[in-house]
Amino acid sequence: MGNRIDRIMMKKTILFWILMAVGTLLAAQTAKDVRYVFTEASDLNLIGKIIEGTSNPYHRVDTTVYKGFTKSENTQVRCSAGLAVLFRTNSTTISVKTEYGYMNHGQNTMGISLRGYDLYIRKDGKWLYAESGVSGRNTPEKNTVIIKNMDSSMKECMLYLPIYSEVKSCLIGVEEGAVIESLESPFRYRIGVFGSSFTHGISTSRPGMSYPMQLMRMTGIQMLNLGCSGNCKMQPYFADVLCDADVDAFLFDCFSNPTVEQIEERLIPFVEKIRKAHPDIPLIFQQTIYRESRNFSVVADEREKQKMEAVEKMMKRVCRKFDNVYFIHPCATSPSHETSVDATHPDDYGYTLWAESIKKDVLDILDKKR
Amino acid sequence: MGNRIDRIMMKKTILFWILMAVGTLLAAQTAKDVRYVFTEASDLNLIGKIIEGTSNPYHRVDTTVYKGFTKSENTQVRCSAGLAVLFRTNSTTISVKTEYGYMNHGQNTMGISLRGYDLYIRKDGKWLYAESGVSGRNTPEKNTVIIKNMDSSMKECMLYLPIYSEVKSCLIGVEEGAVIESLESPFRYRIGVFGSSFTHGISTSRPGMSYPMQLMRMTGIQMLNLGCSGNCKMQPYFADVLCDADVDAFLFDCFSNPTVEQIEERLIPFVEKIRKAHPDIPLIFQQTIYRESRNFSVVADEREKQKMEAVEKMMKRVCRKFDNVYFIHPCATSPSHETSVDATHPDDYGYTLWAESIKKDVLDILDKKR
Repeated sequence: MGNRIDRIMMKKTILFWILMAVGTLLAAQTAKDVRYVFTEASDLNLIGKIIEGTSNPYHRVDTTVYKGFTKSENTQVRCSAGLAVLFRTNSTTISVKTEYGYMNHGQNTMGISLRGYDLYIRKDGKWLYAESGVSGRNTPEKNTVIIKNMDSSMKECMLYLPIYSEVKSCLIGVEEGAVIESLESPFRYRIGVFGSSFTHGISTSRPGMSYPMQLMRMTGIQMLNLGCSGNCKMQPYFADVLCDADVDAFLFDCFSNPTVEQIEERLIPFVEKIRKAHPDIPLIFQQTIYRESRNFSVVADEREKQKMEAVEKMMKRVCRKFDNVYFIHPCATSPSHETSVDATHPDDYGYTLWAESIKKDVLDILDKKR
Repeated sequence: MGNRIDRIMMKKTILFWILMAVGTLLAAQTAKDVRYVFTEASDLNLIGKIIEGTSNPYHRVDTTVYKGFTKSENTQVRCSAGLAVLFRTNSTTISVKTEYGYMNHGQNTMGISLRGYDLYIRKDGKWLYAESGVSGRNTPEKNTVIIKNMDSSMKECMLYLPIYSEVKSCLIGVEEGAVIESLESPFRYRIGVFGSSFTHGISTSRPGMSYPMQLMRMTGIQMLNLGCSGNCKMQPYFADVLCDADVDAFLFDCFSNPTVEQIEERLIPFVEKIRKAHPDIPLIFQQTIYRESRNFSVVADEREKQKMEAVEKMMKRVCRKFDNVYFIHPCATSPSHETSVDATHPDDYGYTLWAESIKKDVLDILDKKR
């Protein structure tokens, strides 16, 4: 009996100290006097850029160099979709302080994805989701705590940047005295992904959930996202960018935005131009996905059906005409047809299905190349 | 050879007429002169209300009758989370024109879910996702086309209302000359669901993706959603509402918001009060879910662990003390830990996993009752 009481007392004492320790940690982390020390993200390892050396490091394309974009395309290629910063830190808290240019406020994508950040930390060799966040609607440039209350072991972090905002400066905050340093990229190859809103990540909850970013975590292959919502139509001025990109392969989602006429007219010259600049790399074309709007809209159904048929026909010609060209068929629809946000765009899980559906093909093609 | 040309010509002629037909339909549907005729949603079959006869039909609780709520709770119980309107129509297009009261603009839930609409149409006995939409940010009360270009067969429709806005009037628009009429509910039983932001549907993409709404489509059981983000703490004034509800069972997600102390103090009196008003119905309590914030925050991990342990202990007492009480364990986490929007709330698919994880338990308990 005495022993039992001792054990209970001991348990209570341990619990007391755990609570005290947790309480102290909580106080330390949430106290207003945590002093954050900031490092510009581009001074760490900023990955995901299809073109390096842009005058604003968070722009995907340097619009002072590449010309021909419409106003909305110009805005989009300056957005940081697909960019992530890699760093190591032992800070128990991580914040960001952003200077924004353009900010998108669409209603079919989460604010966290459009304007916010998404943090993964490597654990047992895998990228594990840690936290995500966005600054207040009326205080976008305020220092925003993304995560706090971690232990102080050294961690390998990957922080995805906003998908549909222009970042002029992104300061990563860690607590005073903590280490923050650049982390070498563990991702192999460089695959350029030119695509529509699907590639851009429209309708995701957070920046890391677009299909290229999920595919990157699934495969360890570096994806360089040039998704431009509504604007991936094989325009020659986009091809100019792709010609200059230093990549091991291209993955195209270039049949979601254009009309049948545009596909018939532009596809062959587009491939010719890319192939001339990149004679030896795999060009992987994705058929567009099934849109849930086809469930009941006879117009959407007919339009998409005709487009997909035209794509099948054109891709047969392309595969005959060019070597090292692949045509694959992603699927973002679950059997329940529930994985859509707005009958056009998949939700996070729709994009998971997409990434899973092409993972083997992409790996096989790159392994074949190797 | 002649036959082949004939066939080609025939195909071309058919294609021409299909294109003409589609073109005409498109013109008819998108023309600005489509005249919409409106019916107030509450004059059709408005389902999902835990308390009938509220002075505003789109309020879940009549705040002129039930008192004691804080300001934010008052706002929340007036929001139309979990409400849906059932109707039949042969209109090829459906619109909504909403008069809003309060509107939420949170950044961790899609605008379509907070302020918009989600349309399902019954096909082969199942509710198939059709479309979702929300009015423009600066023109919230404008007539908003949810779907167009459908064929003109009679359809059974279920339109979910906004989860985090107060609706003062919701006019359903169909094209002039089309039929619109109330549809009898195919859902059986009435299960009251009192819960946190999880039950409310925070972080969903669209109103139909909260776990109670998904569970309702999966099981055919009518869920009556009293989810109040951050505010489900077994308050006695919420119990007043639940005591008056006409239900066949309750499903509780009442351990996500309160502290350990609140759970220890309030759970037994809460159950006593409900049980007195409803002597014979199943009371199904759900453990709170694993939060992804626990992956790296030691404080969140410890806090949630202690809470879950306290819940396990308290529920043992409740199950001993009361008959017809059940304790079940939902799961909204996938093996990849990717199904979270903000490290607290599941995304659509997390809520799918939640609904799937409790489906059998809920059905078994109700079948046992029957």
